[in-house]
Amino acid sequence: MVAGDQSDPADVLIIGAGPGGYVAALRAAQLGRSVTLVEAERVGGVCLNEGCIPSKQLGRFAAAIASVERLAIAGMPGLAGAPDLIAFHRHRKQAIATLVQGVQQLLTAAGVVVVKGEARFVGRTRVCVQVGEESVRYFDFKDVVIATGSEPVALAGLPFAGDRVVTPSAALDWDRLPASLLVVGDDYVGLELAVAYSRLGGKVTMAVPGDRLLPDFDADLSAVALRGARIARVDVRLNAAPADNPAFERVVVSAGRRPKLSVLDLAAAGLARPAGPFNVDPQLRLDRHVFAIGDVTAGLSLAHRAMMQGRVVGEVLGGRPAAVDATAFPRAVFVEPEIASVGLTEAAAAASGREISVGRFPLTALGRAVIEPGTYGFAKLVFAGGGGPLLGAHLAGPRSTELIAEMALAIEMGATAEDLALTVHAHPTFAEALMEAAEVSLGRPIHVRPPRGSAN
Amino acid sequence: MVAGDQSDPADVLIIGAGPGGYVAALRAAQLGRSVTLVEAERVGGVCLNEGCIPSKQLGRFAAAIASVERLAIAGMPGLAGAPDLIAFHRHRKQAIATLVQGVQQLLTAAGVVVVKGEARFVGRTRVCVQVGEESVRYFDFKDVVIATGSEPVALAGLPFAGDRVVTPSAALDWDRLPASLLVVGDDYVGLELAVAYSRLGGKVTMAVPGDRLLPDFDADLSAVALRGARIARVDVRLNAAPADNPAFERVVVSAGRRPKLSVLDLAAAGLARPAGPFNVDPQLRLDRHVFAIGDVTAGLSLAHRAMMQGRVVGEVLGGRPAAVDATAFPRAVFVEPEIASVGLTEAAAAASGREISVGRFPLTALGRAVIEPGTYGFAKLVFAGGGGPLLGAHLAGPRSTELIAEMALAIEMGATAEDLALTVHAHPTFAEALMEAAEVSLGRPIHVRPPRGSAN
Repeated sequence: MVAGDQSDPADVLIIGAGPGGYVAALRAAQLGRSVTLVEAERVGGVCLNEGCIPSKQLGRFAAAIASVERLAIAGMPGLAGAPDLIAFHRHRKQAIATLVQGVQQLLTAAGVVVVKGEARFVGRTRVCVQVGEESVRYFDFKDVVIATGSEPVALAGLPFAGDRVVTPSAALDWDRLPASLLVVGDDYVGLELAVAYSRLGGKVTMAVPGDRLLPDFDADLSAVALRGARIARVDVRLNAAPADNPAFERVVVSAGRRPKLSVLDLAAAGLARPAGPFNVDPQLRLDRHVFAIGDVTAGLSLAHRAMMQGRVVGEVLGGRPAAVDATAFPRAVFVEPEIASVGLTEAAAAASGREISVGRFPLTALGRAVIEPGTYGFAKLVFAGGGGPLLGAHLAGPRSTELIAEMALAIEMGATAEDLALTVHAHPTFAEALMEAAEVSLGRPIHVRPPRGSAN
Repeated sequence: MVAGDQSDPADVLIIGAGPGGYVAALRAAQLGRSVTLVEAERVGGVCLNEGCIPSKQLGRFAAAIASVERLAIAGMPGLAGAPDLIAFHRHRKQAIATLVQGVQQLLTAAGVVVVKGEARFVGRTRVCVQVGEESVRYFDFKDVVIATGSEPVALAGLPFAGDRVVTPSAALDWDRLPASLLVVGDDYVGLELAVAYSRLGGKVTMAVPGDRLLPDFDADLSAVALRGARIARVDVRLNAAPADNPAFERVVVSAGRRPKLSVLDLAAAGLARPAGPFNVDPQLRLDRHVFAIGDVTAGLSLAHRAMMQGRVVGEVLGGRPAAVDATAFPRAVFVEPEIASVGLTEAAAAASGREISVGRFPLTALGRAVIEPGTYGFAKLVFAGGGGPLLGAHLAGPRSTELIAEMALAIEMGATAEDLALTVHAHPTFAEALMEAAEVSLGRPIHVRPPRGSAN
């Protein structure tokens, strides 16, 4: 069959059922659009099936082991044996199947038609979906949303090779610990894997190309990430060339992701293929009836960015006056201690030339933290000077991945240091560190000594 | 010696070095006042030495045991033996000593004079402190802050008796598990103890006077608290008369606290002793130069309320135009699942006659929750109708004690459901439940099915 053959109408066609695509589908359907959702693999996409969720399952499991280890000083017995990775993966797959099924049920309930297959454009308003080896279907769409996500980047000198040099996703599938593991990279994906496998008992080395981990985070978070990885017994080597080393049984390359656009045949739809990701407008539009969301668009490769875009594009497709107006995209790294960040780093805020006021509070001064043996970390808040709003927050410590939510809301609401300091935070909680850091930025710390000469 | 003998001047005299008193001392000293702080026991008060901190140490330890148990299905080995309570208490005491020492150092650095002894008024501007069995000191103050805190209430039919029928604080000191434990009460203090001792392996019964636990929380939180306690193997008996039962080796009575005012001799200062707590103005004033903060004032018996009042009274004493203006006092209960609450319950909001909009999101629909085997709970948000601000938040589930911080800020900032829904929450985190609950309240849920007939 060729383009021009029998086709089905598709009021809204969404290509890719990851966290961006399925959320867009649900929202557009809620608002009365008739939605066809095309997915080559499983709904939920990379995030649910082989990214965010399984990596956090592994991280959570490893964190529990570390927690027991740290509580030994407080009388906690050790674990009666090694973790059972077969059981871990059985549970992991069941949990993911539950989530995938949940998404499928939501799509069905919303009346979204899910088509399994690989989609490519064959005209300005037509898509061909390869639904089987010898079978295709055509859809004529009124509106289309490109939500095909991203794929891992390979390193020039270190190509992926079989089951030995693999992507981070592939490394989440191992049902036994490699005798030795090399993680090449400096991003949160590689770091999470390295720390988790080390806590599970593996011998893990991390080859970091530059002089810091998490180079796109605040420098203080890079420092605490390095400390944490080393405490978790990862052999972190800085300024290491990204090269294979046959001494390692397995190698994971974590070198970022790039938009997955090659199979779409954008030219057939009259769309130029960008060198990198798409630049879209606040309605996520590429062209009048063509939208793009998620990792194919310029910005951080984050499931929650894709989901937010999915909600907005769903609203736009439903005729609502919606637009992307979020300014704060929190990032959470599931390592030891947990790391999270939102908004401007101190360096970026300072480089912008504006006056800033920084408050940093160490967890060693916090009641809730002293309850947890072996806890360290901090809350560091960057405010605009002169009593201005919060610009950025950088957290390291237990539960930071949840605490960052308050900081994202603070940025969105334009909260100042006074607002945070005057909001009562429950005692004893880690969230008190945020209030204390705000007080520090105002020159009136309570649980740490004021800097010399300040009397505020 | 009698009143009139030699005395020392005290610019600001603070009676009680609990979380209210020591914070007031630090802040007033920062602002240039000369502060004398009188404490009969240890700085940090009940909270640090025998309340919040040790109860959370026990709870955290118990939660780690429960976590390992729940992860068994995912391949986590069991614990190699019973917890060592001797080691637990050694570590507990060390951690508390560290915190007490930290507060002492802050007080010293701020120039606060700490006097150990029991204080009572002997005149309008004079206090006598019993600094030893046969030794007293007198202080003539310019301003005085009453921060003596509270003491546990005994039940008429069930008086405290030796080491068998004890206060919750006393129960935190046991270095072996009682063969059987009866907890009498329905408040969070009793519940935390019951769940923790049950998780440590004790046989725990809880006699609840009414038909619910946590009767001053949202009814849904009472329900989940009951479920959680029973899953933790606590034998919860509702509508049980508060009576002793010789079948139990030990009994804890948790029946609330009352202001600790008896030894102060308020009449000597010309102050009327209230039947209950003091009612103070927004500057925490009782009389021109007499202030009161913490559990001796009307309101929830919470360390963070005392601390907030301490900061405000410190500002007032320092001549700043400060006033208590917090409206949101979060409460955190360290049980399984964690429970937290801030603002109005659904029942209270509905009873106020205003139109409300409630959004509830179950954790079973949340990716981050599915990662944790055996997780249940919810986020329930109560908004003013017509797109109005958040009035109350009621959370049950892992890390709820931290998530409540965002909700307190939301209330203080006047955030609406749209504000919460449009704030990007990191994936996969428990905080996403807050955003989802906001979407539910707006009639446009993403990860649960919309109610029938809604199309928003």
